[in-house]
Amino acid sequence: MRKILIIGIGAGNPDYVTVQAIKALNQVDVFFIPDKGVDKTALQRLRKDICERFIDGSDYRMVPVPIPTRAAAGQDYRGSVDQWHAQLADDYESLIMEELGDGECGGFLVWGDPTLYDSTLRIIEQIRAEGCALEYDIIPGVSSVQALAARHRVALNRIGQPVLITTGRKLTEGFPDNLDSVVVMLDGDQAFKRIEADDLDIYWGAYLGTEDEILVAGKLSEVMGDIERIRRQAREEKGWIMDTYLLRKGGKT
Amino acid sequence: MRKILIIGIGAGNPDYVTVQAIKALNQVDVFFIPDKGVDKTALQRLRKDICERFIDGSDYRMVPVPIPTRAAAGQDYRGSVDQWHAQLADDYESLIMEELGDGECGGFLVWGDPTLYDSTLRIIEQIRAEGCALEYDIIPGVSSVQALAARHRVALNRIGQPVLITTGRKLTEGFPDNLDSVVVMLDGDQAFKRIEADDLDIYWGAYLGTEDEILVAGKLSEVMGDIERIRRQAREEKGWIMDTYLLRKGGKT
Repeated sequence: MRKILIIGIGAGNPDYVTVQAIKALNQVDVFFIPDKGVDKTALQRLRKDICERFIDGSDYRMVPVPIPTRAAAGQDYRGSVDQWHAQLADDYESLIMEELGDGECGGFLVWGDPTLYDSTLRIIEQIRAEGCALEYDIIPGVSSVQALAARHRVALNRIGQPVLITTGRKLTEGFPDNLDSVVVMLDGDQAFKRIEADDLDIYWGAYLGTEDEILVAGKLSEVMGDIERIRRQAREEKGWIMDTYLLRKGGKT
Repeated sequence: MRKILIIGIGAGNPDYVTVQAIKALNQVDVFFIPDKGVDKTALQRLRKDICERFIDGSDYRMVPVPIPTRAAAGQDYRGSVDQWHAQLADDYESLIMEELGDGECGGFLVWGDPTLYDSTLRIIEQIRAEGCALEYDIIPGVSSVQALAARHRVALNRIGQPVLITTGRKLTEGFPDNLDSVVVMLDGDQAFKRIEADDLDIYWGAYLGTEDEILVAGKLSEVMGDIERIRRQAREEKGWIMDTYLLRKGGKT
């Protein structure tokens, strides 16, 4: 039997790693590291730093996982993602069977939390559904949503009110009715520019938890231009960006 | 100048504590511990265990904070909470000024994450707004929402879809339109019994992360009776319960 640990390593700051994650890191024989090309080298280095800092000894192996490019989504976003996951599952399965001996433990290092907008869990489930004998466990981690709120010192919800966590793609449909707190992830396109900004505040953060962290907060109508400019500059300088934000209607509390 | 650290200590399992939280725990001179009566003694013990396990030495003090009872909400939930917070802020301010010397660091230990359905952040902001010179910082922690998803090995969101985090009180208004994933917290009244259950799965967990953890998952219509019974029994046995659940429409992924 092979075992897989899907380990949430938190949102950028190595100090976000939990005691449970440290124990898990120390059980892993083989880490499978998604290889998304040169633009994410800073993240690769951060992952390596986390392993070196928290793992006793060095009897673990790092295996790069080539990540196929996802077909442009077009009209069928779900279909394109399903197809991509199916291919990833095939690739991962071959790699796991090749690299992981019987009784060994494989590890995936997931930024933030593995249960929020991450595919690893689904891919492992799919491999198991195809009959591959794998045990697995999930180790929760501090997500970028929590890092964002902590760094801005703002509660995610207003008193007794809900909070919606959504994507940039979904936000383009408009700020949801009957809600006052919306966290947006996976927004490569600054969807906040295309919604009704009256009475909305934004709490924005990029490279959260890292030494390059940028925070901007204010009335959306007043700071959206700044965020767009800062985001573009940072992205050009580093070659990549990861950002997230909270939109709040009706004030901070 | 006095400093306050609002420290997320994760959802029950001491291994959920982060490296950042451990560093923060070791900076604190005085911990302010809300005293909610005998029914939460298990949680008091868990907090104490976390301090003993992660703090080097023992030169810190524990100060109990008497928590006033909140007036029944009636029609004005927000008003009753605001009033309660105002009283808490007065009490906390006196206690902080009394117990914390200039240059000392006070700590609040918050279950889960301090930015999700927790009052500490608001109370500290209110004390500052009244002119009390306090610095403060927030240390994020693994929330019960993440513990729930990790232990059930279910993603919080379906692919590309949003997830709403809400309260039992709000859920009684019905399962929200256009959403397929809803996490419910602060539900003392099993609001899941009073919504349209067709096509909904539930992933329920109580005492998450602790050795008393209980997990139930299945079609809501089939397991809601079991959950109600298990919840009532556990609550009677222990004198308290903390639970949360994910409602999912349209299947696991």
